[in-house]
Amino acid sequence: MKKIIIINGPNLNLLGNRETKIYGTLSLKDIEESCKKKCEELNLSLFFFQSNNEGEMINLIHSVEKEYEGIIINPAAYTHTSVALLDALRAISKPKIEIHLSNIYNREDYRKDSITSKGVDGIICGFSSFSYILAIEALNNLINDK
Amino acid sequence: MKKIIIINGPNLNLLGNRETKIYGTLSLKDIEESCKKKCEELNLSLFFFQSNNEGEMINLIHSVEKEYEGIIINPAAYTHTSVALLDALRAISKPKIEIHLSNIYNREDYRKDSITSKGVDGIICGFSSFSYILAIEALNNLINDK
Amino acid sequence: MKKIIIINGPNLNLLGNRETKIYGTLSLKDIEESCKKKCEELNLSLFFFQSNNEGEMINLIHSVEKEYEGIIINPAAYTHTSVALLDALRAISKPKIEIHLSNIYNREDYRKDSITSKGVDGIICGFSSFSYILAIEALNNLINDK
Amino acid sequence: MKKIIIINGPNLNLLGNRETKIYGTLSLKDIEESCKKKCEELNLSLFFFQSNNEGEMINLIHSVEKEYEGIIINPAAYTHTSVALLDALRAISKPKIEIHLSNIYNREDYRKDSITSKGVDGIICGFSSFSYILAIEALNNLINDK
Amino acid sequence: MKKIIIINGPNLNLLGNRETKIYGTLSLKDIEESCKKKCEELNLSLFFFQSNNEGEMINLIHSVEKEYEGIIINPAAYTHTSVALLDALRAISKPKIEIHLSNIYNREDYRKDSITSKGVDGIICGFSSFSYILAIEALNNLINDK
Amino acid sequence: MKKIIIINGPNLNLLGNRETKIYGTLSLKDIEESCKKKCEELNLSLFFFQSNNEGEMINLIHSVEKEYEGIIINPAAYTHTSVALLDALRAISKPKIEIHLSNIYNREDYRKDSITSKGVDGIICGFSSFSYILAIEALNNLINDK
Amino acid sequence: MKKIIIINGPNLNLLGNRETKIYGTLSLKDIEESCKKKCEELNLSLFFFQSNNEGEMINLIHSVEKEYEGIIINPAAYTHTSVALLDALRAISKPKIEIHLSNIYNREDYRKDSITSKGVDGIICGFSSFSYILAIEALNNLINDK
Amino acid sequence: MKKIIIINGPNLNLLGNRETKIYGTLSLKDIEESCKKKCEELNLSLFFFQSNNEGEMINLIHSVEKEYEGIIINPAAYTHTSVALLDALRAISKPKIEIHLSNIYNREDYRKDSITSKGVDGIICGFSSFSYILAIEALNNLINDK
Amino acid sequence: MKKIIIINGPNLNLLGNRETKIYGTLSLKDIEESCKKKCEELNLSLFFFQSNNEGEMINLIHSVEKEYEGIIINPAAYTHTSVALLDALRAISKPKIEIHLSNIYNREDYRKDSITSKGVDGIICGFSSFSYILAIEALNNLINDK
Amino acid sequence: MKKIIIINGPNLNLLGNRETKIYGTLSLKDIEESCKKKCEELNLSLFFFQSNNEGEMINLIHSVEKEYEGIIINPAAYTHTSVALLDALRAISKPKIEIHLSNIYNREDYRKDSITSKGVDGIICGFSSFSYILAIEALNNLINDK
Amino acid sequence: MKKIIIINGPNLNLLGNRETKIYGTLSLKDIEESCKKKCEELNLSLFFFQSNNEGEMINLIHSVEKEYEGIIINPAAYTHTSVALLDALRAISKPKIEIHLSNIYNREDYRKDSITSKGVDGIICGFSSFSYILAIEALNNLINDK
Amino acid sequence: MKKIIIINGPNLNLLGNRETKIYGTLSLKDIEESCKKKCEELNLSLFFFQSNNEGEMINLIHSVEKEYEGIIINPAAYTHTSVALLDALRAISKPKIEIHLSNIYNREDYRKDSITSKGVDGIICGFSSFSYILAIEALNNLINDK
Repeated sequence: MKKIIIINGPNLNLLGNRETKIYGTLSLKDIEESCKKKCEELNLSLFFFQSNNEGEMINLIHSVEKEYEGIIINPAAYTHTSVALLDALRAISKPKIEIHLSNIYNREDYRKDSITSKGVDGIICGFSSFSYILAIEALNNLINDK
Repeated sequence: MKKIIIINGPNLNLLGNRETKIYGTLSLKDIEESCKKKCEELNLSLFFFQSNNEGEMINLIHSVEKEYEGIIINPAAYTHTSVALLDALRAISKPKIEIHLSNIYNREDYRKDSITSKGVDGIICGFSSFSYILAIEALNNLINDK
Repeated sequence: MKKIIIINGPNLNLLGNRETKIYGTLSLKDIEESCKKKCEELNLSLFFFQSNNEGEMINLIHSVEKEYEGIIINPAAYTHTSVALLDALRAISKPKIEIHLSNIYNREDYRKDSITSKGVDGIICGFSSFSYILAIEALNNLINDK
Repeated sequence: MKKIIIINGPNLNLLGNRETKIYGTLSLKDIEESCKKKCEELNLSLFFFQSNNEGEMINLIHSVEKEYEGIIINPAAYTHTSVALLDALRAISKPKIEIHLSNIYNREDYRKDSITSKGVDGIICGFSSFSYILAIEALNNLINDK
Repeated sequence: MKKIIIINGPNLNLLGNRETKIYGTLSLKDIEESCKKKCEELNLSLFFFQSNNEGEMINLIHSVEKEYEGIIINPAAYTHTSVALLDALRAISKPKIEIHLSNIYNREDYRKDSITSKGVDGIICGFSSFSYILAIEALNNLINDK
Repeated sequence: MKKIIIINGPNLNLLGNRETKIYGTLSLKDIEESCKKKCEELNLSLFFFQSNNEGEMINLIHSVEKEYEGIIINPAAYTHTSVALLDALRAISKPKIEIHLSNIYNREDYRKDSITSKGVDGIICGFSSFSYILAIEALNNLINDK
Repeated sequence: MKKIIIINGPNLNLLGNRETKIYGTLSLKDIEESCKKKCEELNLSLFFFQSNNEGEMINLIHSVEKEYEGIIINPAAYTHTSVALLDALRAISKPKIEIHLSNIYNREDYRKDSITSKGVDGIICGFSSFSYILAIEALNNLINDK
Repeated sequence: MKKIIIINGPNLNLLGNRETKIYGTLSLKDIEESCKKKCEELNLSLFFFQSNNEGEMINLIHSVEKEYEGIIINPAAYTHTSVALLDALRAISKPKIEIHLSNIYNREDYRKDSITSKGVDGIICGFSSFSYILAIEALNNLINDK
Repeated sequence: MKKIIIINGPNLNLLGNRETKIYGTLSLKDIEESCKKKCEELNLSLFFFQSNNEGEMINLIHSVEKEYEGIIINPAAYTHTSVALLDALRAISKPKIEIHLSNIYNREDYRKDSITSKGVDGIICGFSSFSYILAIEALNNLINDK
Repeated sequence: MKKIIIINGPNLNLLGNRETKIYGTLSLKDIEESCKKKCEELNLSLFFFQSNNEGEMINLIHSVEKEYEGIIINPAAYTHTSVALLDALRAISKPKIEIHLSNIYNREDYRKDSITSKGVDGIICGFSSFSYILAIEALNNLINDK
Repeated sequence: MKKIIIINGPNLNLLGNRETKIYGTLSLKDIEESCKKKCEELNLSLFFFQSNNEGEMINLIHSVEKEYEGIIINPAAYTHTSVALLDALRAISKPKIEIHLSNIYNREDYRKDSITSKGVDGIICGFSSFSYILAIEALNNLINDK
Repeated sequence: MKKIIIINGPNLNLLGNRETKIYGTLSLKDIEESCKKKCEELNLSLFFFQSNNEGEMINLIHSVEKEYEGIIINPAAYTHTSVALLDALRAISKPKIEIHLSNIYNREDYRKDSITSKGVDGIICGFSSFSYILAIEALNNLINDK
């Protein structure tokens, strides 16, 4: 059974359980569960992780090369500022996908630079939690193509 | 049976049958066929179209509101220059998805403005022809959610 | 009886008959009719035209020199991107006016460059369909002044 | 009889009576007279004013809310620099129109930002003194539509 | 008893007595009164002033050096355009504070340059009329520290 | 007794106890003590915290919603670079104030973007350690107004 | 006998037969004839074409790969705006040359980006209709070098 | 005896009589006197004026055409912001010179745009009060050359 | 024996032991050893450290003032984004050197801003692992010069 | 027999005789010879010159007015930086052509400003050494047209 | 008798003796003579020099410190590009003045950066050859003030 | 014995023998001597050169390929402006190092573009004259590695 990892960036832990007016009613826990179900269907083993800490996220990306077949990352706010995450993603030779819940093309100006996106194979955004499901399918496809 | 449309923009007719060094060996015809197969699985009826003409693409987008349940568009080079396509997409209330074969974040500077992307619900890019398959799945999901 | 032409650019065919939340309840047909009435008052003959195709619009502008006494153009989205329309307008020695339904100074950043506006005599914007009526009056004035 | 106001900004007092090579032969007095005639036709009472002083113009704009049915403003050079005039215009709930004698789209770079234009309902430019007549008609239309 | 001055810039005279949808229900008169009360508590004598005229504001700033112990200024729209006000503030050696009713960091692009702010000791913004009270306290503190 | 939190960002731990030529003679400990005294006067309970770690600061901001009545933050260098801190602040519905010891408008160019400021209710800067005292007063006011 | 194609972009049909003050007295027909004469000398067969329509031009460029030995293109206004034409040119492996009648380095700002020029082998501009003759000679040279 | 005018812009009234650390020990009165002496030598009659008010300065510039043989202006801070002063200067056909006490090329960024300078014949800066003496000599030369 | 510290930033732990195509065959361990050898020659005691965490790096830089005679830092990706690291370096009065393995002047655009470099005494880049040896020598020289 | 001059700018002396991987195998001597041959055909006398020194190139351009019928210049790196060469070219009333071996539109960003190109009649680039032959022909044509 | 130097930059040797339509009828020789006359009046000894070569100009500026009491420089095109000339001027402690024949504020965009101007005490421009006479007077004044 | 060259750019001849307040007390002669000593230790033969002339520096760089084993260059002001020097450096296949006496990252804005740096293997800056010694050591290392 192949192992994959999903890394969620800063503030995504707030999803759904409070501030539901801002973040919607679906929690990160709910997303994790539907991801797990999708992985079972595809016979994948999933490690699902969230951190507000850039360094911790880099460490985990480094672990992909040896321990996982591929990575899905929602870098959240770090998408727009972290050259260090980009370098980490580029160092990984395994399939890697960036996802976002919303369409990031309709956001404020200081979010227009999408730095980490340069370090991944493909990007999926705008489908709310279904972005995760599509990404798992896409990752599975990339792993099998390799 | 629900009808959807996939619109392919300028130069995509060149895919695969010649200049294979530049455009790869998969032709637009091949992509159309795997899209048709995927649609059959999801019980969708597909109209698959290519044009090099911005005005013709706008006309077709206008037809979506009355005749289709959703639209997938690969605007190719018009992604970066066409405010008219953006306006057309925004006038459509049906689900709409933008796709690209490659990761458009690693392209030249004059491609960095992604104008049409502001007019769609979600974006999928970088998965080669599999971007189309994921988009059909995502569109089906958006149609059923409505 | 003097002949004038009004050219409407991309997506303006959508006005009023559907998506009324976005485009208002007045259709392009309604606007055409009040334009015709105004022209009759001023003893002008009107050709009223809409196209989503930049090339077709250029061809029509070329016809102005020989066939019309003046032109009113609502270039819609092409206002911001079409140097070719600007060149066509500049090649015309007859009076020419650009109009917009809304005040284009309060729009998004990618609409801030107003390229075609450099090629006309005057601009009227922000008065909804009444922009057309004012433009007919202004054009009549320019024709008589010549 | 409804009252309207026309405010003319800096240097417009120079129109026509001297430097005719630069400013043309029509004086501001001449323009005022044709405006008055047009207002009589439309049964409007007109206050026609010129000032080189930004603060004085702001004070007068403030008076519109209580004393006039609408305002036409030619902010001249302040169009491009005065955020204070924009704030004053935005504070007015009555119909308001910005006009210019020339097509401001063909001017120098330091005139490209049109700040006050964001605070009005509609803009008319490029028709020389006839811009004033069109604006009175447009304002009358906006007042009656209210 | 030490004397201080509060200068209010363009359009602030409109606060509260009309256009309450735009400017809120608190008038500049109300603010002046709560400022006076606060000053009495701190044993300060207050001159509270409003002007729409940049030159008049400069003249008053010049008077600070000889006649007041400190100055609070709400430059309103002039914050973003007036190098002359900045020069006037820099010429003053007495304590000086800039205030704003709203958080100016969430405003339009043409308000992003904060020119006058470079000429003051401290800035307080975003606390509505309480910005004035905090500024009086801060100014009192700066005066006593001198 | 209402609880509030003050979060100090990177390098603020260096205040006063060494490099006094650069950072002044007042230590962060000194500031904490005068803050505590001010809070006692206002019957507030204060948690005063410093961290050089962006992730740790985000975690603490997340805790505000459930555990505190309001937050004061001095983001120091992260003011200019951290979209993640901005997202965290925006997720909080409690009153929030940003403070700075110095007037940040007179700093280097790479400090001119003030990203986190967009996520708070009000900003106070330039009053040295007294910025903290004013912020406590302002926060108390916001809490009571709610 | 080798076949080549010359494609002329928008508004070039206006050359010479009217607006001679703007476009000079030489018509596109005249240029075609001197091109044909030059081709005969070099034993080349020429297809000479003009269109105002971007899509039509793309279609014709696509035909080069199979039907012509090389292409000369005067993209006129599309030089500065059309990424789609650039993509079409890049898809062609045959020799390709861009020409302009005038020196495009002395034009307005919105013409300074030369997008299509990135997709050709060489550029010739500023020699009026003789640019065409030089381009035929250069193309002949490139074809023979291959 | 020929009449000339010297107009001094905002804050120049502060020169020398107070804030001598900032503005030097020479007052505007002292400068006026040495200007008067120089004018007597050249048989010129001088009107020497200072204002903090942009509108008042414009009014005075308008008077030059009829009442003076030439103008020297030190626009101070308005150099960098006033398009209205530029328009006023351009409307004058008499010789006009801009002066500055200091070398304005070594100032802050927001002073780098020199708008009014586009409206004068020549510029002299950096020679402290001797800039005025040189300007009188230069103006005398321009008047005699006319 | 004098103590110095070498801090290595994000992703440098990946050097050499895997992804050798991207990062070369020399590991960070190898570099540490040759640094240690060089230090022994110069009679220096070396602490060699790597972290992916910005906060941890700041903490360590703070320790330099009391515990080390100088610091060498390879900030990697943080070079281009971290104002917080810059502030930390500036707070240190001991000699400090920035190094890079490659010539950072030939990198992508988003790496062109070199923020941390403003906070050090000297910079050495482009000599691969020999950059470290040169930096130790340079640091030794700076320490002895003090 | 008419005299023309070809001036080659900095580093072009390196062509072909060494670093053939970078500069190709054709030397400047080889190019000179084929230019001479072409000139003989057209009955032109050629002076062919190379210099790495901007001042020397300016001196030679000055000599064109009296001693030559026209000039061809390959300014190499000075194309992008030398306003002085542009001024020299503009001072020449004889026909002048700029050439480049490669298509300069596909080069690095710091080469995108083409300053000298504004001072010539026409430009030919991208045809390797054949650019010189085309330029001789074009120059001959311009000389005969005069 | 005090010695001064006037250095004229590239292309100024062309003044007046040919291309009189472009450069006017006054030659550099004529200017030199009126400068010599002015210097005699002021009891100054003048060395008047022109060069098209940046390096030669730098060498001569270096000689000022030991051999002259002051320098007047007309850097012509090098004004806008030469950081090396700026460094040379800054290395000189003697009075230094930059002059231009025309008002450089009304020139093309690539002339807007005035680099050398940062290295002089004062600037005089726009008075044609009289700029030189004013500069000699100003330099004499600076020398005597020292 | 291997030969290397050190080229010093404009104004570096001024180092130390005069203007010691600006340029320090160490002369270029002093630096040359310590460089010679270092070279002797490493058994290298050194040619040490200074020029204010860009063309002369290019000529000397061209000589490196045949006559030297490597080059150290301090381009001084030409670092920021000379594309021609960059081209010359890129044409050299021998090891090449750029040095600066000061940390060029803390300089004015017009020095921020470091053009020549793109053409060298490594850069060393900020160590005053010791930059030269480190560069000799680094160059020796590069030569031996080759």
